Amino acid sequence: MIYADFNSSSPLNPEVKKYLHERLETGPYGNPNAIHSMGQNVLKGMEKCRRIIGNILGAEPEQITFTSGSSEAITTVFHSVLSLGYEKTGKSIVITSSIEHACVRNNLKYYEEEFGYKVLVLPVNDQGVVNINVLEEWLNAYSSEVALVSIMAANNETGVVQPFSQISDLCHEYDIKYFCDTTQFMGKLPFDFSQHQIDFAVCSGHKLGALSGVGILLAKTPTALRPLIFGGGQEHGIRGGTQNYLAIECLTVALSYFEEHQENLVLLENLKKEFERKLKLSFPEVEIFGDEVQRLPGTTLVAYPGIHGQAVQIELESHDIFVTTTSACSDNDPEPSNVLMAMNVKPTLSRGVIRISLGLWPENYEEIYETIYRILSLSYQKLHRLAGPDLQS
Amino acid sequence: MIYADFNSSSPLNPEVKKYLHERLETGPYGNPNAIHSMGQNVLKGMEKCRRIIGNILGAEPEQITFTSGSSEAITTVFHSVLSLGYEKTGKSIVITSSIEHACVRNNLKYYEEEFGYKVLVLPVNDQGVVNINVLEEWLNAYSSEVALVSIMAANNETGVVQPFSQISDLCHEYDIKYFCDTTQFMGKLPFDFSQHQIDFAVCSGHKLGALSGVGILLAKTPTALRPLIFGGGQEHGIRGGTQNYLAIECLTVALSYFEEHQENLVLLENLKKEFERKLKLSFPEVEIFGDEVQRLPGTTLVAYPGIHGQAVQIELESHDIFVTTTSACSDNDPEPSNVLMAMNVKPTLSRGVIRISLGLWPENYEEIYETIYRILSLSYQKLHRLAGPDLQS
Repeated sequence: MIYADFNSSSPLNPEVKKYLHERLETGPYGNPNAIHSMGQNVLKGMEKCRRIIGNILGAEPEQITFTSGSSEAITTVFHSVLSLGYEKTGKSIVITSSIEHACVRNNLKYYEEEFGYKVLVLPVNDQGVVNINVLEEWLNAYSSEVALVSIMAANNETGVVQPFSQISDLCHEYDIKYFCDTTQFMGKLPFDFSQHQIDFAVCSGHKLGALSGVGILLAKTPTALRPLIFGGGQEHGIRGGTQNYLAIECLTVALSYFEEHQENLVLLENLKKEFERKLKLSFPEVEIFGDEVQRLPGTTLVAYPGIHGQAVQIELESHDIFVTTTSACSDNDPEPSNVLMAMNVKPTLSRGVIRISLGLWPENYEEIYETIYRILSLSYQKLHRLAGPDLQS
Repeated sequence: MIYADFNSSSPLNPEVKKYLHERLETGPYGNPNAIHSMGQNVLKGMEKCRRIIGNILGAEPEQITFTSGSSEAITTVFHSVLSLGYEKTGKSIVITSSIEHACVRNNLKYYEEEFGYKVLVLPVNDQGVVNINVLEEWLNAYSSEVALVSIMAANNETGVVQPFSQISDLCHEYDIKYFCDTTQFMGKLPFDFSQHQIDFAVCSGHKLGALSGVGILLAKTPTALRPLIFGGGQEHGIRGGTQNYLAIECLTVALSYFEEHQENLVLLENLKKEFERKLKLSFPEVEIFGDEVQRLPGTTLVAYPGIHGQAVQIELESHDIFVTTTSACSDNDPEPSNVLMAMNVKPTLSRGVIRISLGLWPENYEEIYETIYRILSLSYQKLHRLAGPDLQS
């Protein structure tokens, strides 16, 4: 079995699984906010996790707020920056890109419709990279009116890495808050919060081998945050609700695993490139999106013109290889991917995509890519034959 | 070791632990929103959980939204009902009680301060039961202006059960939405959503033996809900973010355990009553709060005048018995409990409380209460001696 849908949800990291088995037996359990020693031990463990995570991600412990996941963290960012309205500040513009995740898009739709914010959407080039020149023009033209810039670090579908460091410098220069959706980036490439002028970044446990239901919100200035969820004063009043301490511990194990296995990223990237090269050699008509620019090491978004992505996905699945078509959230959406539309990909081609996304484990990358290459080739040949004369002409 | 702080966070239920150990090995893992069969199997499992939970709690599957916990569910209720403002509806009043959890109080503070809602706070009697006559007066006087009634089912500190069924009938009569904070009630006494005119109810995993980081929002009319967290359309667009499916499965195991062991509730209640009777016999000056009315089976809030609760808690802990003083969220709060203030308990007495809260497991209730009685008696004797002549006079 090959699970190649890490960008959607990764399987549990083996170290996390091991940790969890042991943790279930040893305890302690308790409310980290309770005064007795069991609660206090849970709290100590959780705060140790915060420090370890801070070291890995280049953040001070107090810049880290634990959430239920990326969606909550992202929604908290928009709530913090936008929900007071623009009447007092005059900052009524939000700049974003045309390839953001549905979570960001739906947040912006809400603030557009209910609060009257104006959303400017940055175009991307045919490789799926946002146009930073247009961003600079807009910042120059509207700087005093811009409440927030929201541009992701790496795209979930193509894996294309965005120039977020340059974006953060630009935003800093114009004194504009920058939220970088790092959901797909975290645990797939090294990230150092202290090295960028990013105001807010996020992390989702289930994208990197930890449990679902846990995430991180990094804030350069934590006092800029306003609680989205009210509770009993947890997380310094920023996020109510008893902390998901078991999942926080597992997230720490997963991030530590990433930290310790980073050297494998180059290998993974090289083997992916080799796989893609062979695939294009065998099937010159195949399109690999964003292949001229930096992408996440294990991500390939590929389409064979005229062959439907779902047919390929089913074919691969019959050989125990699990991929998806676009993103999990929009798999049931009959519309072609908005990311590919933004890249000016024709619907006939974008309907043909499958996304192969691997993680740092299992480590037999070579064997995995070999198998995917072999089965994908067979699938393309079979589906091409079945597609009939139209396609074959 | 006796863990007697279930109202704060319960330990993992043994069945949940067993389930989780096996589940970690068998899988499947995957994003429940992905199209491949691994994701679809996760989805099927999750929807089965929704049906089982629906059967246990008397709710239709579509009335159930999975959240990260009670705090999120509660905040979603207030967001759904109040965040559009009262300008269009003219409903600017929220009625609540003086013994609600900090999560409810902090939500109401937000809507009072930022949206201008008027919050009317129902008094309670000296047993900690809300005054339903005053509620009826207020509903009668202000019915067309009331946006929401928010009164809990059972208090987290005293365990006192509130007349929520009567409240729900009253609200229904006046056509006013009723949110019942059932966080402490769920998994401690049987609850049937279909039997009450309650519009919204909630459940928190870690209060009943499941993992933290998961909860339930029950809504009579799910279309009345507005998303608090935006995402990729999960939970029918009501709650964004990949579902915490492992924790949802564990919550189902925990609720099923409760369902199957309900007959033990009477035994637990009787043994608690016996424990309290013996304690009052040995220490007539001891105060047990709400002891004349229905309380949660395993909850006792008790104070010895002049002896500080934290001293008792530490004394018990030295004998491996874990209790807390008030609620976990306010343990570090130097102020006396607002619940006890609302019950007109003098600060000198309310500073003396400890809360003993047990759950349905382990089942050796008799032994547990015997031990607590024995050690608590010793502690009271010791601390009374140490307290000096003032107390002894």
